[in-house]
Amino acid sequence: MKVLVLGGDGYCGWATALYLSRQGFDVAIADNFCRRLWDYELGVQSLTPIKLLEQRVAAWQALTGRKIPVFKGDVTNWHFISMVFATFVPDALVHFAEMRAAPYSMIDREHAVFTQVNNVVGTLNVLFAVKDFAPQCHLVKLGTMGEYGTPNIDIEEGFIEIHHNGRSDVLPYPKSPGSFYHLSKVHDSHNIMFCCKTWGLKATDLNQGVVYGTVTEETVGHEDLINRFDYDEVFGTVLNRFCAQAAVGYPLTVYGRGGQTRGFLDIRDTVRCVELAVLHPPAEGEYRVFNQFTEQFTVLQLAEMVRQNAVKIGLKVEIGRLPNPRVEAEEHYYNARHTKLVEIGLKPHYLSDSLLESLLKIAVKYKHRIDRNAIAPRIQWRKTKNVRRDEDEHVLAG
Amino acid sequence: MKVLVLGGDGYCGWATALYLSRQGFDVAIADNFCRRLWDYELGVQSLTPIKLLEQRVAAWQALTGRKIPVFKGDVTNWHFISMVFATFVPDALVHFAEMRAAPYSMIDREHAVFTQVNNVVGTLNVLFAVKDFAPQCHLVKLGTMGEYGTPNIDIEEGFIEIHHNGRSDVLPYPKSPGSFYHLSKVHDSHNIMFCCKTWGLKATDLNQGVVYGTVTEETVGHEDLINRFDYDEVFGTVLNRFCAQAAVGYPLTVYGRGGQTRGFLDIRDTVRCVELAVLHPPAEGEYRVFNQFTEQFTVLQLAEMVRQNAVKIGLKVEIGRLPNPRVEAEEHYYNARHTKLVEIGLKPHYLSDSLLESLLKIAVKYKHRIDRNAIAPRIQWRKTKNVRRDEDEHVLAG
Repeated sequence: MKVLVLGGDGYCGWATALYLSRQGFDVAIADNFCRRLWDYELGVQSLTPIKLLEQRVAAWQALTGRKIPVFKGDVTNWHFISMVFATFVPDALVHFAEMRAAPYSMIDREHAVFTQVNNVVGTLNVLFAVKDFAPQCHLVKLGTMGEYGTPNIDIEEGFIEIHHNGRSDVLPYPKSPGSFYHLSKVHDSHNIMFCCKTWGLKATDLNQGVVYGTVTEETVGHEDLINRFDYDEVFGTVLNRFCAQAAVGYPLTVYGRGGQTRGFLDIRDTVRCVELAVLHPPAEGEYRVFNQFTEQFTVLQLAEMVRQNAVKIGLKVEIGRLPNPRVEAEEHYYNARHTKLVEIGLKPHYLSDSLLESLLKIAVKYKHRIDRNAIAPRIQWRKTKNVRRDEDEHVLAG
Repeated sequence: MKVLVLGGDGYCGWATALYLSRQGFDVAIADNFCRRLWDYELGVQSLTPIKLLEQRVAAWQALTGRKIPVFKGDVTNWHFISMVFATFVPDALVHFAEMRAAPYSMIDREHAVFTQVNNVVGTLNVLFAVKDFAPQCHLVKLGTMGEYGTPNIDIEEGFIEIHHNGRSDVLPYPKSPGSFYHLSKVHDSHNIMFCCKTWGLKATDLNQGVVYGTVTEETVGHEDLINRFDYDEVFGTVLNRFCAQAAVGYPLTVYGRGGQTRGFLDIRDTVRCVELAVLHPPAEGEYRVFNQFTEQFTVLQLAEMVRQNAVKIGLKVEIGRLPNPRVEAEEHYYNARHTKLVEIGLKPHYLSDSLLESLLKIAVKYKHRIDRNAIAPRIQWRKTKNVRRDEDEHVLAG
């Protein structure tokens, strides 16, 4: 079974490509390396030293004998993506090839527009490519739990049965996203739903929670296979960021009251969830949504867990309280359903002291690579600029 | 009070600009003339002979003494829209500057991508311009009733109170749009809602039904003020199209079973609704939605009404039944609330025999300008191309 991983050089994409390759799928990667470019723009780097994609796939082949062909290009370029489809003709397509950081989308007008155009046009191209070159191909698209926002009712998986004025219908779950990035994913979801209905495509939208961890069974096989670990304010996900902060004695950056509740998952569950989706395709014309996370925590709970485990290995950790750079509820109801992936076989890796300890030890091992200037949140939701000015350069200079 | 009308050279925009000018608002128009460009691309023209925008505003000034300054440019160009805002600094902004035809967005991949990028980026630019140059400015944005689709429950105005598992919340009404164009409006709605919440902007989203008519009190003042009347399959709205078809003896193009129910309104109500929204701005940070239509009809009901009135003035009319080029329910529940505009003062012009007769007479007067080849639906929802090929040229050649 041929699986094309778009964005296969990124954090989740690389781990997924290796995992699927080891499970016996014929995996190909497409990537334009924009994730690495944004590190240059922001003046930061992965905590872990990652290798060139050529070195990565060569190491994988040396270790396992399995080849992963690489297509270099941009999914917003129709000539590129149609060439990839005409060449590889995938049975399933895992689409990670989007800009994925809320703060990046809030820097200024240019970054907001870039985020929405990049993500929406890339996904439109993917939909047309599937329709015209591989109509049986199952699109597995990475969405985000952030599409839902924090409604005062239970969050369902993509759709909700609404009873209203004596009638009822099952309709798309209402979306209240909290950044131009999260909005781009909502736009994608509507576009994909429409194409499934209109063209008979089949798609799974994985509304993923916040991913933590960096190690998977595959990436530990060789130093050249190491996965990225983002700790900066822009691309770092919260638990990984806290571990890096603990390693260098930086007070953990809790925003506002810290009662923001989100769904979280281990990166080892990310790769398994994608596999489960691929192994259980939807029917022709079906657009389905899985909420892809395993546990809910508040930000303050996570900070406290990191602090406790950091102390055990001799680190001194304070919990900082910062004015919230985002516009969001800091204490709210949150109860999101996440049973569909469990029903088809997911056995979660719950957040444990041993995982936290191992993550902290990775952060300590590479702490010489941490730039303390890249930690504090500087991108302010209320102050998104229209054009970048010279005096704003510090935002991007780290 | 200064009102900027974006897209003020178009069908609704021109009528609105004149109406608001006559009510005493200081009106300016911005337009890039893309609507006229698309006529060239499609090989069609307005049934009514419209003048250059220069001639239009000159005639208006000669007739009324009122000046309407014109800014020529594209709202997707930040330099243009920021220059307009820095120069004019509007108190209210009426945003008609979007590609507005569902079939146009379904021609091929390029038109789908163009539609979404054009509409989404234009609206993002408008939001940033308001935030940075005129934060008190009230954004009046044209949405569409087509954002809702045809749910099996009553359609509310923008938001719905949902009771679920013993809890409740008021959330954005779920959207099920039926074309890449309608999807672009859903994307806009989410973006605007977010900017109101995050930046404290105030916006009214007018989810407009299908507009009919061409004459307003202002446009009849002089031949140079005449408004456009689109009868072609792409930009023609259904009632206007049927009148043009009746004028040339072309069987009325009912798609499928004809039970598609939609909300409709007279263009004289469009201009009044915009004025009412402008006169009653929302609070700071408020995003509100008005459903802007006055009556519901099925397509078949409209065809029958056109037929009856056409016969009265001596025209021979048949009702044609065509395979539906769209993917949509052809018989369905439809009950959409539309009370908010009435509550602030709208007195609807309901569809009457006299309006139909006058519309038919306009169609007969200009029937020598009708190209029968531009009437039949050729753009097929299920067959949206990825790239236009030579053999598809007929789609655009009319």
